[in-house]
Order: sequence, then C-alpha cells, then structure tokens
Amino acid sequence: MSKLRLSITMSLDGYAAGPDQSEENPLGVGGMELHEWFFPLKAFREMHGEEGGEVNASSAVVEERRADIGATIMGRNMFGPVRGPWPDESWRGWWGEDPPYHHPVFVLTHHPREPLEMQGGTTFRFVSDGIASALSQAKDAARGRDVWLAGGASVVNQYLAARLVDEIDVSIAPLILGAGARLFEGLDRRTLKLGQIRSVDAPGVTHIKYELAR
Amino acid sequence: MSKLRLSITMSLDGYAAGPDQSEENPLGVGGMELHEWFFPLKAFREMHGEEGGEVNASSAVVEERRADIGATIMGRNMFGPVRGPWPDESWRGWWGEDPPYHHPVFVLTHHPREPLEMQGGTTFRFVSDGIASALSQAKDAARGRDVWLAGGASVVNQYLAARLVDEIDVSIAPLILGAGARLFEGLDRRTLKLGQIRSVDAPGVTHIKYELAR
Repeated sequence: MSKLRLSITMSLDGYAAGPDQSEENPLGVGGMELHEWFFPLKAFREMHGEEGGEVNASSAVVEERRADIGATIMGRNMFGPVRGPWPDESWRGWWGEDPPYHHPVFVLTHHPREPLEMQGGTTFRFVSDGIASALSQAKDAARGRDVWLAGGASVVNQYLAARLVDEIDVSIAPLILGAGARLFEGLDRRTLKLGQIRSVDAPGVTHIKYELAR
Repeated sequence: MSKLRLSITMSLDGYAAGPDQSEENPLGVGGMELHEWFFPLKAFREMHGEEGGEVNASSAVVEERRADIGATIMGRNMFGPVRGPWPDESWRGWWGEDPPYHHPVFVLTHHPREPLEMQGGTTFRFVSDGIASALSQAKDAARGRDVWLAGGASVVNQYLAARLVDEIDVSIAPLILGAGARLFEGLDRRTLKLGQIRSVDAPGVTHIKYELAR
C-alpha cells in the first residue's frame, strides 16, 4: 500500500515557517534558519548541482525520506508567493527550471491552473477539489511508491486532521520562531495515535519519526 | 555559577499539560500520557519507594537531570489544584508527606502563604513577589548547586521570556494533546538563541537538550 509520509522541519516552538512570508522571505522572517542543518550537506549540494558538502548523521535521514517516493503534495504557499487567482502563468515555483522533485507534484490551491511541465521529470499539477482528491491523484501518479507530504503547515494540519497521514518524520531545529505557520495545530488527541519509531541526534537538529495508527 | 535548568515533558504539539486541570486530572485531560515513558523506569519506582522497574536509555537522562540540583521552582498550578487565595493550610501538594524533591521548592503564587516543611528535606516556600525574586531565593537556597525549573508551562514561558533560563532539556512524548498548557509560547526569536547539546532516542520518547546563549 502506498503511504502518505510527512517530512518537515519545525522550530522547537512548533513553527514550520516564520511570519510574513513573501517572495523575499519564502519561509517567513527567520524561517530560513530552520534549514541550517540541511544546507551544509552533500545531499543538499547535489540537489543544486554543486560539489562537496558534509556527510553526517542527517545524511541517512535525508536519503531515507527520499527513498521510494513517487509523488509530492504541497500547499500553494509552498509553491510560491502568489495569493488569490493566478494573474498569469509566469510564476513557475521557487526552484528554477529543473526542480529537485523529478516526479509529479500536486499543488493544493483554490484557483485552477493548467499543469506545468518542468525539466527533469517534475510536473506541477494544480488541484482545486480538495485534499482527498490530491491524495488520490498523487497515489495514482506514484504507481505503488509513497507520497511525500511536504508542507506547509496549513496543508499538513488538514491532512493530519483528516487522518490521512501514515508517517511523520519531523526535524526539530534548535530555534524559537515566536510566530508564523504553526504545525500540529487544531488536532484532536482522541483521533491521532502516534508511535515513536526512532530519533536521530544530528549536528544542529534532531529527527524524530512516528507512525500513525489508522 | 548556579544555573537555571528547565527539564520538562511536552507533547509533539507542544503542550506540557492537557486542558481542564483539576484534582482528578492534575495534568489535565490526557496529560498523564505525557509521562508514560517515565512510569516504567526503576528511577520512577525508587522515587515512590517501590522495587523493580526498567533501566533504559531514559534512565541516564533522568539521572543527569537530577544531578547537582539544590532547589526547585514551580508554578502554583503544578503544586496543586487550589486557585485564588488559600482557603486554609490543608493542601500540601500532590506528593504526600515525603515529596520526591528533598530540597527547598519555591512555589510561585500571587497569594502569600507560610512555608510548609515536609518530610525528607523538602520545604515548600511560597513566593509572591515575582519570578526574579523566586530565582534569587532558589539560587541562595541551592548553595552553589543548580536550580530546577520544573513547570508548568506558564511559569516556564515567563522565565524564558525574561532570558533567565540557562538550559532546556525537553522530553518529547509521541502524543498529540490538541489543547492545554502550551510551552514555548509568547517568546521572541530575536532574544532566545539555542544550541543543541544532544538528543537521546529512548523507548517511547526523545530527550533533547539545549543551551541558551546569555
């Protein structure tokens, strides 16, 4: 069975992005610091066609998260800073012409848009009929592989509340953000049962993986 | 220098207690589940004069947290369910006549009360002139040892906002509470700088320790 696997980084106070997201601050004010554990890694550099970089305890976690993923789901704010109806087709994501997904990416939005075929196997498909539909389309596209739930916080919280997530792998950054997009918000303790699978002590971050009872 | 060391357990969604704390539910609805990693331990049983129990990866963490502590600070809601002025002297804490502290415990409250001397070296002292005063009294009482900041969330958040905490050791329980007393709330990212010291993967819990830049 294809699983929906969440992997995401949050601050110790539970934010997946800082406040005031914009084109200048895709992750909100202070939000870039969340990913400081990731930037020095060889795995990160390779994603951007660069040489070098570190291999440390986070490297195996990054590899594990990418393994067996055939499609991605993200919220519209993770795709870009445009709000409301799409004014034109000019915004093509944060990642340039060859985004680091290399598979179909389903973008949840209230505003329909034609699919956007990028280089390297990534196609952005815009889904405006809800999270269940996006998941069903993503599972079909993944052809037996798993689906990555990438963020942001709002979309993640909706999938968790609907009990559609099978696995959570959360990286906790040594950081207080104080405001922004709060993860694990608006949930009901009676419907979500977690079991800790493992945690990893890595330089400047802790990765904790949970399974969710269905 | 004597340090103020926070150690506390929270849910993945950041709650140190569930909603609706009462004499029947000292940790609020669902809050007892936060400490399920702790109850099976030999260290927990010994605290309550019982034999047996497990030794696992959490045991060394519990020992480390207790080492070199000479006084404790807690909020009034952690001391008991009484709200408003003390009606009488009858409430003597949750822990029976021989509480597991064995040193002076400073209870923050708006309502003055005489010190309460218990068995085994624990004395509860009620401080009604603020968190800085409680810390100063606790450091004096600790005589060069450190001070444990025990909870609850409201008092912890006040000490963090005032930049009086030197160390955070947080246990993250595999649990969504959905409501209750939120830890790390109302803080400012610009004044709190954390460095991760270590994390420990233990059965049913992850312990992460941070130092705070002063």
